[in-house]
Parts: sequence; C-alpha cells; structure tokens
Amino acid sequence: MKASQFFIATLKEAPADAEVVSHQLMMRAGMIKRLGAGIYNYMPMGLRVIRKVESIIRDEMVRAGAVELLMPVVQPAELWQETGRFDKMGPELMRVKDRHDRDFIIQPTSEEVVTDIARQELRSYKQLPKNFFHIQTKFRDERRPRFGIMRGREFTMKDAYSFDRDATAAGKSYEVMFAAYKRIFDRFGLTYRAVAADTGAIGGDLSHEFQVIAKTGEDAIIYCPTSDYAANIELAEAVAPATPRGAATQALTKTPTPGKSTCADVAALLSLDLKQTVKSLVLATDELNEAGEVVKSTVWLLLLRGDHDMNEVKVGKVEGLKNGFRFANLAEIDEHFGSKPGYLGPVGLKKPVKVIADRSVAVMADWVCGANEPDFHYTGVNWGRDLPEPDLVADIRNVVEGDPSPDGQGVLAIERGIEVGHVFYLGTKYSKAMNATFLDETGKPALFEMGCYGIGVTRILGAAIEQNHDERGIIWPAAIAPFQAVICPIGMDRSAEVKAAAEALYAELQAAGVDVLLDDRGERPGAMFADWELIGVPQRVVISDRGLKAGTVEVQGRREAAATPTPVAEAAALVKARLSA
Amino acid sequence: MKASQFFIATLKEAPADAEVVSHQLMMRAGMIKRLGAGIYNYMPMGLRVIRKVESIIRDEMVRAGAVELLMPVVQPAELWQETGRFDKMGPELMRVKDRHDRDFIIQPTSEEVVTDIARQELRSYKQLPKNFFHIQTKFRDERRPRFGIMRGREFTMKDAYSFDRDATAAGKSYEVMFAAYKRIFDRFGLTYRAVAADTGAIGGDLSHEFQVIAKTGEDAIIYCPTSDYAANIELAEAVAPATPRGAATQALTKTPTPGKSTCADVAALLSLDLKQTVKSLVLATDELNEAGEVVKSTVWLLLLRGDHDMNEVKVGKVEGLKNGFRFANLAEIDEHFGSKPGYLGPVGLKKPVKVIADRSVAVMADWVCGANEPDFHYTGVNWGRDLPEPDLVADIRNVVEGDPSPDGQGVLAIERGIEVGHVFYLGTKYSKAMNATFLDETGKPALFEMGCYGIGVTRILGAAIEQNHDERGIIWPAAIAPFQAVICPIGMDRSAEVKAAAEALYAELQAAGVDVLLDDRGERPGAMFADWELIGVPQRVVISDRGLKAGTVEVQGRREAAATPTPVAEAAALVKARLSA
Repeated sequence: MKASQFFIATLKEAPADAEVVSHQLMMRAGMIKRLGAGIYNYMPMGLRVIRKVESIIRDEMVRAGAVELLMPVVQPAELWQETGRFDKMGPELMRVKDRHDRDFIIQPTSEEVVTDIARQELRSYKQLPKNFFHIQTKFRDERRPRFGIMRGREFTMKDAYSFDRDATAAGKSYEVMFAAYKRIFDRFGLTYRAVAADTGAIGGDLSHEFQVIAKTGEDAIIYCPTSDYAANIELAEAVAPATPRGAATQALTKTPTPGKSTCADVAALLSLDLKQTVKSLVLATDELNEAGEVVKSTVWLLLLRGDHDMNEVKVGKVEGLKNGFRFANLAEIDEHFGSKPGYLGPVGLKKPVKVIADRSVAVMADWVCGANEPDFHYTGVNWGRDLPEPDLVADIRNVVEGDPSPDGQGVLAIERGIEVGHVFYLGTKYSKAMNATFLDETGKPALFEMGCYGIGVTRILGAAIEQNHDERGIIWPAAIAPFQAVICPIGMDRSAEVKAAAEALYAELQAAGVDVLLDDRGERPGAMFADWELIGVPQRVVISDRGLKAGTVEVQGRREAAATPTPVAEAAALVKARLSA
Repeated sequence: MKASQFFIATLKEAPADAEVVSHQLMMRAGMIKRLGAGIYNYMPMGLRVIRKVESIIRDEMVRAGAVELLMPVVQPAELWQETGRFDKMGPELMRVKDRHDRDFIIQPTSEEVVTDIARQELRSYKQLPKNFFHIQTKFRDERRPRFGIMRGREFTMKDAYSFDRDATAAGKSYEVMFAAYKRIFDRFGLTYRAVAADTGAIGGDLSHEFQVIAKTGEDAIIYCPTSDYAANIELAEAVAPATPRGAATQALTKTPTPGKSTCADVAALLSLDLKQTVKSLVLATDELNEAGEVVKSTVWLLLLRGDHDMNEVKVGKVEGLKNGFRFANLAEIDEHFGSKPGYLGPVGLKKPVKVIADRSVAVMADWVCGANEPDFHYTGVNWGRDLPEPDLVADIRNVVEGDPSPDGQGVLAIERGIEVGHVFYLGTKYSKAMNATFLDETGKPALFEMGCYGIGVTRILGAAIEQNHDERGIIWPAAIAPFQAVICPIGMDRSAEVKAAAEALYAELQAAGVDVLLDDRGERPGAMFADWELIGVPQRVVISDRGLKAGTVEVQGRREAAATPTPVAEAAALVKARLSA
C-alpha cells in the first residue's frame, strides 16, 4: 500500500473526552472516530488492525474444528422470550419494534439463536461434537460507555458455541477451545494470562478469562509467580491459615475510641497492627411469599480482618446467602446490635444474628472489634471465652498479595488485566430452557451440553495499546499492526535516487510477504516520523540521499532508541528477519 | 476442508414459503436458514460464498483506489435529521431508542455518516478525490420481505462514496467505479448488463444499474443486440418515429362499442390493429398554498397508443408534472369529459384540458379513441381536422421490443434482470444538506461533489442462482462457489486404496491452490452426488475401487452430462485447468 492510496489522519491532540491512553492514541492515530456515545467509525488505519485480529481468530478457530456461520444482528424476541432473557436482561439489551410492532433485539450475544439452530440441525449424537462460531457486530446499551472501544456500545465480537453429547465431551470441547485461545493470544503477540473465573450457578471449574496484562486494567488478576496458578479476584481462594488459633493472652477490655469508626483509625489510635482488628459487615436476607412480599428477614454478621475486603461472589456461595442478600438497614442494625455502624461487633449482641467468620478471623486471638456502643471498641477479644464460636467459617474475602497460593506452590501476587476473552462451560442452561435435544445412542432425546467462547475483537485493539505504548504513541505487535513496516523516503520528490530506492525496497518487501506501506505523501521528516511513531508501525526504514551516498538506509524498530544503518541490499532481509523474530 | 470438519445440511424439500428458485435452492442446500421474516442465518456453506463475493469486491475496490473503513450499524438520528431523511424515509427505516430515550436508526445506507466523516476529515482539495467504502450489515424493514435473501430485511451490502472537488472530477470518479464494477462482475462469472438508469432530480446521465440477467428477474432491461445500448425501462427512450404523420383518409365516425372499454376490446370488435387505437389517461396536478391546501387543480390528458404503456418516470419529467401528479378523480373526469372512464378521448371535450401526446400518437392518422360518451368510440380521428394539435408531444411510454435503439444502431430487445449493483452520481445533494465543504485552491469553502456505489453482497447469491441452476440444483460460477471442487470417494471406509487416492488428490489440489472439499462423510454415492449437485460445486472427482483398478478417477463438471475418466496422475491438473478456463 502507498500512503497516497490510503487515508492517514493523525491528530496532535486527543479529544478531551478520551480518558484512557488507548482511547487517546487510537483517536490521535486516526484509527477510530467517534460517531456517538460508545459508537465509533473504524477508520481505515484501525480497520486494518481489526481485520488482522479477525484473521488470526478465524484461522485458529477453524484449525480447532469450529465452523463459521453468521447469525443476524437483529433477532426476533421470541427466542429471547424462551430463555427469559428478553425480560430478565436490563436496559443494556437494545430492544426495537418493527413496522408491524413486533419485538426484536439487537444482539449482544447469540446463545438463543445458535441453540435454535442446533435443535433443528443437530439431530443425532453422530453429528456431535459441533462448534459454531461467528464474528459479528454486537450492541450493548451501556449506561456509561467509556474508554473508547474498550467499553463501547457497538463492537465486534467472535463468539463460539459448542454442542456436546455429555459433560465429559463438553469438557473436551472446552479444552480444545482453551488451547485454541492460547494459540490465538500467542499469535497476537500480547502478554496475557488465562485466569480461572467463577462459573456462578453452573458450577464446575470450566471458566477462564483471557486477560491482557496492563497496568491500567480494570480487573485484578491473582497469580502465583512460582506456579501456573492464576484466577480472577472473584474466584481466587484465600486458603485457611496454616497456623492454628493462638491462646488468649489479653483480657476483654472496653476501650474508648471516640470518633474512630474504621479499623484503620482504631488501629492507629491504639497503636495496633491493622491485622489485629476485625470489621463487622451486617447483611440481611429476605424470605418472600408467593406474592413476592417479604415475610421474614434474617440478619447476618460477617467478620473480616481489618486489612481484608469482602468478596461478594464468595459471600453469595455461603449456605443461606445463595439466593441473594443485601446490606442490612439501620433499623435492623439497631434492633440486633443496639448501636450505629462503625462500632459494631459480635460481642454482646442485643438480639442473635448468624455470625460468619472469614477463615483468617477464625484463627485470631486477642483481637479488636466494635463494642456495639458508639465511640467504644473491645480489645483482647477471644473466641470461646468472650463470644461463641462463629456459626460458620468460610472464605469470604478477596485475597491479597502474599497470601499462600491455593496450589501450595508459593505466594500470590496481583497484577492488573483487561478481559478480552472468556471460555465458559454452559452446561444445559440454554438447551434446557429451549428444549434443545438430540437423539443419543439409545435413540432417546438428550439435552445438549454447551460451552460458549467469546473474544472481544475490537476490545483487543484497546487492550493491546494499553499494554504496548510509550510517550510517542502506540507500539503494535507485528502480527496485528496496521502495517508491519513503513518506508519513509526523505525528499522523494526532489531525489530520483531516493524515489528509486524507495520503490525498489517497497517491491522487495512486498515480494517477501511483508505488509509494507510506502509513505509517498511528501511530508517533512519530523512530521512523517512522528506519524509513524504515533501509529506504531513495528519497523521503519528511512531512505535519504545522505544515506544512499554511503550505500545505506536506516532501519529502526519502534521500540529502539536509534536506527541501524543497513546496506541497501540487506534492508529487506533485516526487516523481514526482525518481523519473524 | 474435509466434510467431517465442516457442516453440510441439505434438505430433500424446500420449505413452503420459498417462492423463487434461488430461495428454494439456498434453503435446500443448507446455505441459509430462516430466523424471522426477511432475517436469515448464513449457514457455513452460504457464508463461504458471501466471503468469496466480498473478497472479490474488496480486491477490486482497493485496486480502484477506494479505501475501506467501517461505519456503524446503529447510527445516531441527529445526522439523519440534518438531511431530513429521519422524517422523510418511510417505515423501512428501522428506528430505535436507547436507554436514555435518544433516537437512533439501524443503517439502511450510510450517506449521512460518510458525509459527516468527509466534512471533518477532508479539509483541502489536496485530499481529493477520495472514495471510502465499507462492507456492512444493513437493515430495511421491508413491508413484505420475500424471495429469501433477494429481498430480505437484514442483508450485507458494499457501499462506497466518492468525494470530489467538482463535477468533472466526480465524473472521473464515476468512471473509475464503473470500470471497477465491470471487473467485479466479470470476476463473479455472471452474465450481467450495466444498464443506464434514471438520475431523478440530480440530472445528468451518471447512473447505471448492474443487472444480473435472469428469466425470473424483477426488472425489465432494454438493450440493443447490435450495439452497446442498455437502459432500464424507466430510462430507455422511445425515439420519435422516423416516418411523418400520414394524411387523413377516413371520416370522423362515432361508432357504437357497447361494453368495450379497453383498446384491445375495441380493436377486436372493429377488427382493427391495436396500433390504430389511442388510450386516454387523465392525470391531475394540484397547486398548494403555504398552508398546504389545494388552491387550484389542473387536469391533463395523456394519449398513448393502444399497445403502449405509460412510463411514470418519463411523465414525471414533463414540464408541469415535475412536482408530482395523480390520477384524476371521477368528478374531475366528468367535469372535463362528460363521460366515464373507458370511453374518454380528446375529441369534443366538455372543458379544456392540457393534452400531451406520446411521440407515437402524434404521428398517427385515422385513429380510434373514446367518444366521451359511454359505449361509443370515434374512428377515423385525425389531428388538426378533428381536434387541435396536442399541447405537447413527449416520450411518455415504455419502450417495447422492436422499437428503434436510441443510438440508431438497431432495434431494442428486452430481457429480465436482477439489480445487484448501482453506481450513482449524487452531486451536492448530501454535502449541501450537511454543509460538507472543503477549501478549494482559492482557499474558499466548496461543497463536495459526491457519488455513491452499492453492491448487494448477499443479493448476489440469489441472483447468481436465479441465473445458474438446473433441476438438480445450483450451478455456481467457480469464482464464488462455496468450494471449487469436491472429491467424492466411494467406500472410503472399506478401501484403503480409495482412501489413499482421495487423500493424495486432496493434498495435490490444495497445493495447487484449489478450494477443495473432501467428502469423508461416508454417505452412499447417490446421496453424496445429489448433495453436491444441489450445492452446485463446479468440479467433482469420484474415486472408486473400480476406477482405480483401471488407473482412473472420474472428473465431471457440474454442467456436464457425463464424467470424464481421467488417469489418477492427471486429475488435479484437469480440475485446475477447468477451473482456470
């Protein structure tokens, strides 16, 4: 491609609404252009990256035995009513009526449609396993679209759906996809982690997020640097402490802590380690009658070490809290504790509550908690002596750096990531709701065991940039760069030698299969170099009269501080070798 | 690709709602699957064809200097309000509100968005010409979706938009696109015509439809077999007859024609040539005041030869009728003619009307028309003697077979076509409405001269099948076939020789760059052959034990009645040669 046949539109300044660096750089590099909130035009430079990402995904999906089809953007509501999602999904599901007042949705995902295809087309176990995928435009009406195409409303996604005869076969399909995803992300050239994730109501351990590592990532990734363990914060287990509870050494003492309503403040006031304090969180669950009215509420007290945070997903797995919970209201707190928040604790309750202690709290001795009296805390609290053992001990907190790894192979570290892929075992959730069956070997109808596998195609661009950029611009991995190499001739208009050398190298690189752009715009060197550093093309070759006199051109990788003078005849080979490295 | 890694799902019977052969065959071949009215899943076999069509289009568009981008499916209403199309377009424009109750549309086309991009990005004449295109999902909420993907609601289209500094440059961009379209349709391997079409209010002659020739086509294509002339029926000119009007030889005679209200009935009753009769069509135009109320109506009498049909587009170009017209109501007819329809004519009017005679009528002598009295016609009518010369003589009829070609190179013929592409000079219609300007050489803002260029990607499939099929199924041109060749091994499971030969040929054809499928499903020969004849793969190679004993395989083109026994070692070369032919 020559620049004169293409469209390059860089900006000096990013628009004010671009909050994150990938959004700023994509706008400045002319890769995207805002059309509305969360809706972007993919400009020619950005579309090239999207096509390369799609191509790698398609290639590996097909290699893994998945079959590509294309399901519509606009889908009839009927199928979504079968699974209940038409009503259950919130306003992020874009609903639309046609001229006959019939309901449709703009697809955010295609479980319903693909399950409808499967129940019609896959009639026998002999047709299984089968994995259908498509790469299609999706729409989610985010309440607050932001971060450019990282959290846009219209975006491109690859979603695949596997159909299997039983859970074992589904597990195999899952493994095949997991391996394909690793190949895909390896080929992207991005640093990533496959992170175990929560499977929610489905159960099992077949859910992994593919996280692109970036300091600016929204998600915390828990991993063990000395083993393969990696999980997201929702799932990562805080294992029970190895050391048992110590003996009580202090007396229970009510201590004045005026105005100190947080563990941190209390610890500072009393010159104690924050790890000696216990925070009290009061939850409530409601029992409803058939009319949906609350007939009974139960109050729960969760105890966490002062330096730990509650993990809502884990709490949601505790027996009794599985069907949903809420924070208790002030009346309920007063009824059970006789105090206001900030000074609550498990000692001397006004009315009994269910007490759930985090594993860390269950092994503490001589600890500190609220005294259920404003401006007072207890110190020297000890289980058994000062209060009954907790009703339940459970893992209800987020892990922190330094926690032991659940695999016993070291301690946990935390880094930030951007979720760009997800593989997930669905079980029979959709096949059951839609009565999607096939005939098994005995001739009886059986529900499909399903899996779903997504990659946010357009999101990859944002994640790649968050991971790979510097103060001058984007640094694309070669596999997904809009161009792999750019030839920058200086004074191409005036110098026949420069022009000839540029054209020759261009032809040579093209013949070598390098996706190369010849910048024939006639820009000044400074502006030209700044453009390509901003756009982030991996290899640049500068051709000038001065260089040619010495028989060289200058080859420079985007991450390199200086150019390498290279004999003209060797330039193409060097560029090619660097791209293949 | 091997069949076992793919998805083949043929049907014996087409669904009852499939009205046309392409729809029936696509459903039976498992290429599409209905999801809702006018909304289809593109199944793996169909998607392969779509991708090949897209690839040819993309290739030639880029070669012609167009730059690909991607504009969103869901577009904010604001831009559509700028051009007025948000309100002006009928219910086929799918409107949708987001969670904040803001208006959006699901794009049926992207003039507004691309013009918005141009007015921001193309600031100088130096950036022109520029042609942006995308291949994107579109939605038109057709009142009556039908013919499968030929008139669906969701479909894929390539649309390109050119931006130029003046009309001359726009004409050049148009020519470049016209040439690119010819290359695209040539590469598809379809029989087509580029047909001159009406430019409506824009004027000029820069509008062509690309019509795929098919007996079942909706459109009449007018062409001259002995020259390059081709136009659609709306545009094709009925040139003025070369022979002048003859002298009157008959007396004006009022003749009883009881119950004979059509020209055909009158001609039959009077044993006259239909070409001697004249039909009267009564139109009316309304003048409105500022409040939109009708302040004055004018009645027009159009005279056409009995064997001719009115052409509404041509009538709409007649001075006085350009701003819209309607058929006159019965009261207006009675007021001016004193008779009921079926017996109207220009002789002996009750109240004057504007008389417009078609060119053919203006040269007639001794003709027949209604006598403005029920059950009576005049015969022997002659201009000048029996009635004044017409107020206007114009081309207001559809051409018929045998009419002289407007280029003077022969006579016109008519065939049927399916419109799958359109190139169109837009002028400043959109740039004016959206104030889209660039700075010209003098530094002054000037409106872009635009063109738009569409190809119905998914429609191509239907059109290709309407043109190329037989009683056994589809006959794809090699360039857009889902697979170019299929290997059908007979008894692959039992015969190691057959299996080895099939795998060897498969590898050989793949290495030769042939898009080949190896049918390893183990189907019986009859079912297997029927599938591939239905699906329409251009070249088939049957490998059997019997053939191998003679050292041959059977190569058969989809259009051939019999197979060609071919030495094993020559099979790949023969297939390759036939595909390249």
